[in-house]
Amino acid sequence: MTLSVGVDIGGTNIKIGLVDENGKIICRRRLKTRPDDPPAQTLETVAQAVLKITRNLPVATLGIGVAGLIDHKDGFVFTSPNLPGWNKTPVKDILTRLTKLKVLCCNDANAVALGEWLFGAAKNYQNALCITLGTGIGSGIIADSHLLLGANNYAGELGHTIISPRGPACACGNAGCLERYVGAQAIVERCRRLLRQQERSIAASRNQLTLFGQADKQPSLIFDLIGYNLRRLSPREIGIAARKKDKIALQVIKETGTLLGLGIYNALMILDPEVVVLGGGVSRLGKPLLQAVEQTVHSRLYGSNRHLKIAISVLQDDAGILGSSQLHRFFTGYTS
Amino acid sequence: MTLSVGVDIGGTNIKIGLVDENGKIICRRRLKTRPDDPPAQTLETVAQAVLKITRNLPVATLGIGVAGLIDHKDGFVFTSPNLPGWNKTPVKDILTRLTKLKVLCCNDANAVALGEWLFGAAKNYQNALCITLGTGIGSGIIADSHLLLGANNYAGELGHTIISPRGPACACGNAGCLERYVGAQAIVERCRRLLRQQERSIAASRNQLTLFGQADKQPSLIFDLIGYNLRRLSPREIGIAARKKDKIALQVIKETGTLLGLGIYNALMILDPEVVVLGGGVSRLGKPLLQAVEQTVHSRLYGSNRHLKIAISVLQDDAGILGSSQLHRFFTGYTS
Repeated sequence: MTLSVGVDIGGTNIKIGLVDENGKIICRRRLKTRPDDPPAQTLETVAQAVLKITRNLPVATLGIGVAGLIDHKDGFVFTSPNLPGWNKTPVKDILTRLTKLKVLCCNDANAVALGEWLFGAAKNYQNALCITLGTGIGSGIIADSHLLLGANNYAGELGHTIISPRGPACACGNAGCLERYVGAQAIVERCRRLLRQQERSIAASRNQLTLFGQADKQPSLIFDLIGYNLRRLSPREIGIAARKKDKIALQVIKETGTLLGLGIYNALMILDPEVVVLGGGVSRLGKPLLQAVEQTVHSRLYGSNRHLKIAISVLQDDAGILGSSQLHRFFTGYTS
Repeated sequence: MTLSVGVDIGGTNIKIGLVDENGKIICRRRLKTRPDDPPAQTLETVAQAVLKITRNLPVATLGIGVAGLIDHKDGFVFTSPNLPGWNKTPVKDILTRLTKLKVLCCNDANAVALGEWLFGAAKNYQNALCITLGTGIGSGIIADSHLLLGANNYAGELGHTIISPRGPACACGNAGCLERYVGAQAIVERCRRLLRQQERSIAASRNQLTLFGQADKQPSLIFDLIGYNLRRLSPREIGIAARKKDKIALQVIKETGTLLGLGIYNALMILDPEVVVLGGGVSRLGKPLLQAVEQTVHSRLYGSNRHLKIAISVLQDDAGILGSSQLHRFFTGYTS
């Protein structure tokens, strides 16, 4: 039995897992990310946790996925928009010194794609697009059983493909990026708009005698879930309300899925994968999201002999640890 | 010296070349495509031409690129929009029988990409996007030194990525596809609109005394090139006029390049190649097209450490023959 360690460094949490070659997580740790701590200090905490869970066990490699642009060869973080303090951190060097393990680094979305491909919804496919839906929209691409990194390690930037050239401005400097339509913030904004609209409509109906439309004047469940404070709204409450068939929640998810489907469609035209996996926190919006994506994609897709499956991740949060833990299977050329 | 034959079957011409391993075309033939002839008859003519140029020479393989969806493994044309009679033609079987050579088949845009990668503007790169600009917009993708085919051989359908969801209807059933903005027909339509506009403006100025704007009332050179018959307009005349600095021609090319740049940008976000090669008849619009593409792409691209070159094909028409002739280097697994 070969054991390895996978580490997933995100903007909120650091997840560490001891993983066997079949993708079973034998032991795990979770730490809070402290973005203001120097990365060397964070990596020391990570190393201690790793040493604790690997003690006396024959562990050969440690794989680590970090949100940002990673130099896979040197194990170096070029830039990390969510962890700005980590820019230019030699992650591999630091962790090698602290753990004495063979260390491999990777972008977090690529780690997720490897996890999904080896143990999750993309298992047994040769071509997969694994999308991480959250604050940002990342993706990892398996093409002909290879992880596609691109010339500059920028491949899979699905969130910054442009779906409407005159759309809203994006932090990347462009306008109309997919992320501006289906990132967590955009979903919340879309929902807030509908909630405010409903508030106004209910207020208006109270000020006049109305005979029609009473049924629609029931306020959305979401209002209760957020204590009538729109600032507390997150995709989580939208998901809860949707599972109880709340109209506004379902509408928000449908619109989001339709826009996401458009972005996915363009990627399908270029990559032609057999499977698209939706992961990340926002994928917990679940079936209504999947249905809207499927409808948009399949209504546009031509070519009758085309095989395509779209699925929601079952590994969810574990995909990153699992993929990182198996980096040695893909980057062995870089480790010697 | 290893010799091989490359055949490029397009909607207008069939090109055949005897090629050495360095990409030198030693001998070539060109036939007119007769779309109404049965493919078996056309392939017999091709086989005769092949046997004539290979006589007594040690030629091992024949590679053939066909416009359409090709099953690389079985050498079978699934569907061919430009050669509808070729649907379900077992090209490999027929040519193997007629030539006794080892035959390999491929989509024409993929053949072009291989040609550019081995001998052209994408040489020595590991990641390339090679675009064929013509009636349709195809592309072939080299990812980590592999030709990316996709799960269903549909990869590289750049022409059917959607750049504006509310755009004009496309033959594929969708709206706003890149092809509807930068395909030859769209370019011609764009130019006709501007020419008609100029016609009206000149006619109007003749009917009134004008003191200003005389300089702009010079009719476009294109009118002369097409004998004042807008139906005769093709990208060729636009290119000729642009080289003579004709304003309308340059405006058409600039608008086309800007829209093409948008489509390319989305593909770059997904694939992150080092090089983009523009080939096909429409790429002869040349420098003004390249400049507009470059400006659009580079003004949008983020990531300071990103390396990207955009170039116009130097192989042009020969890329297809050259790539087809070397298919054995890529599909050897399929030939045994």
